[in-house]
Amino acid sequence: MKVRILVSFKDSVLDPQGQTVTNALHTMGYDAVMNVRQGKVFDLDLEGVTRKEAEALVPEIAHRVLANPIIEKFDWEILKVR
Amino acid sequence: MKVRILVSFKDSVLDPQGQTVTNALHTMGYDAVMNVRQGKVFDLDLEGVTRKEAEALVPEIAHRVLANPIIEKFDWEILKVR
Repeated sequence: MKVRILVSFKDSVLDPQGQTVTNALHTMGYDAVMNVRQGKVFDLDLEGVTRKEAEALVPEIAHRVLANPIIEKFDWEILKVR
Repeated sequence: MKVRILVSFKDSVLDPQGQTVTNALHTMGYDAVMNVRQGKVFDLDLEGVTRKEAEALVPEIAHRVLANPIIEKFDWEILKVR
């Protein structure tokens, strides 16, 4: 099974990397870009895991390892069941 | 309009960060995780842009600014048209 986890700052947390990208794009003339938020994506290959097991396992991994729950949130989805 | 751009290493390029996450998860007992690939995600707010303009603008920004086309690939999608 292939799953994708997206980790990004909570909306209330400042995102200096995203702000830097926004500024760079404005400098280059891309004025239509009002705001950029940057995050991380993790694509995991899981083996021998049912959909039900994944629904417990993936949030646990995201919460314990991939995201800092104080300042970050995560979303996840199944890309391929196989 | 809200668009999401995913930037990740090409499949042929080693991903040491993803390998480190894989190793950490194995150490913690998550043996079902066979492989992890890490990438970046950029959520952009665009203003005054039609869907057709976005289809030219977003790949241009991804190619010129957000991804290194030598070693990285990108995907993008429209999250919200508004």
